[in-house]
Amino acid sequence: MASRVTMIAHLFGAMATILMLVWLLHYRGGIDLDSDSNSDRIFNVHPFLMFFGFIFIAGEAIMGYRTVAAERKVQKLFHMVMHLIAITLGIIGIYAVFKYHDEIGLSDMYSLHSWIGLGTFCLFGLQWLFGFFSFWLPKSSLATRETMKPWHIFGGRALLYMAICSALTGLMEKATIMGLKRGNESRLINFTGLFILLFGLAVDLSLSLAY
Amino acid sequence: MASRVTMIAHLFGAMATILMLVWLLHYRGGIDLDSDSNSDRIFNVHPFLMFFGFIFIAGEAIMGYRTVAAERKVQKLFHMVMHLIAITLGIIGIYAVFKYHDEIGLSDMYSLHSWIGLGTFCLFGLQWLFGFFSFWLPKSSLATRETMKPWHIFGGRALLYMAICSALTGLMEKATIMGLKRGNESRLINFTGLFILLFGLAVDLSLSLAY
Ligand code: HEM
Ligand code: HEM
Repeated sequence: MASRVTMIAHLFGAMATILMLVWLLHYRGGIDLDSDSNSDRIFNVHPFLMFFGFIFIAGEAIMGYRTVAAERKVQKLFHMVMHLIAITLGIIGIYAVFKYHDEIGLSDMYSLHSWIGLGTFCLFGLQWLFGFFSFWLPKSSLATRETMKPWHIFGGRALLYMAICSALTGLMEKATIMGLKRGNESRLINFTGLFILLFGLAVDLSLSLAY
Repeated sequence: MASRVTMIAHLFGAMATILMLVWLLHYRGGIDLDSDSNSDRIFNVHPFLMFFGFIFIAGEAIMGYRTVAAERKVQKLFHMVMHLIAITLGIIGIYAVFKYHDEIGLSDMYSLHSWIGLGTFCLFGLQWLFGFFSFWLPKSSLATRETMKPWHIFGGRALLYMAICSALTGLMEKATIMGLKRGNESRLINFTGLFILLFGLAVDLSLSLAY
């Protein structure tokens, strides 16, 4: 059961990634952090890395802790390193939107999306540090680990949903800024958001089935 | 511990409600489903009832299942009836925004917010029906109830977060439509969204501590 849910999660994540790529490449002029001619291409790095780089990789890290076919130690390594990759790509993704704001002369951190997004990202970093010191370094006692574990799981799930909220508010903001109403691009964005949400729900379900 | 978290959840929910009322009454011209002169007042029914009427009441229903100081049967009754009240107020809240769209001649269901919002709301109704037939009517066997229970809890938690996503995308959409950048109203909306999110997290935490 849990492994079937994990499969479905991969599929939802892949669908969201593909739809987002179609959106950014076909409708929005492409993805390029160093674009000189078209600042939209700098912006486009942001949604792509925040979903594919941050949320998708972090979701795979969550599920891989149980499902990677290897011994315990390797599963833990996978979990820890994948989250580190997600954080790194997330930093680049956030850098991209600040760079874009700079180029077009827009002020920073005014929107609900930016507050929730950056708040989530910082707490995510803290969760990684807590996890690293509690579960990776061999310092803490078994009793400490047992106490930390339910909090690590609760925090992980809460952060997963917060990241989904961040992505959906971001898509909503962008679609509204572009003044989209009914139409192909609007529908494409909505389906992207829907698959992002379904990915989050499937990851949460695989987590709930494991604990 | 669980009862302290419940207290904190009440506080976050009350804060979000107060901030939203300040926003709608002071900045947005008030709340009135039957307004003839000002269609904004019709719209304003929507965010108020969707948060206070739907999300807040449903969150209290979730927590009350464990924390209402009464016998088991009364706790269950509270849980079931409060959710029914939340659904009723949610229907009025959704009716309000359709009425508003009608009055200003805007088409319906084009946004990611409306898709996720209505999707969440329909699944919420299904979850209520499933719960009613599995746990309230005395028909189903103990074994069936035990099988249904983890799904009911998973579904409830997922729907809670989906409702939070709906509210946050709604706030984000409204703030962007109004073209808000830095400023008092923008900050007020962002804090409203933040407290809505904190309410959801606190309800989830109280749930996680109970199971
Ligand atoms: C977990 C995922 C995400 C996080 C943590 C995040 C974080 C942020 C942050 C911190 C900003 C503020 C930048 C500044 O003020 O200069 C921002 C801006 C923005 N983001 Fe995201 N983002 C995420 C996903 C997305 C997605 C998927 C989209 C989809 C298009 C998006 C669209 C935007 C837009 C339009 C802005 C510029 C307007 C604003 O500042 O709100 N974001 N994001
Ligand atoms: C769980 C909570 C919510 C649900 C289920 C929900 C549901 C919906 C639905 C179904 C529509 C489409 C109406 C139509 O197409 O005629 C809509 C529209 C709208 N809602 Fe919400 N809503 C929620 C919360 C909020 C909140 C808190 C706000 C904050 C301002 C908001 C703002 C809007 C706006 C601006 C629209 C009109 C534009 C559009 O169709 O997207 N909503 N909502």
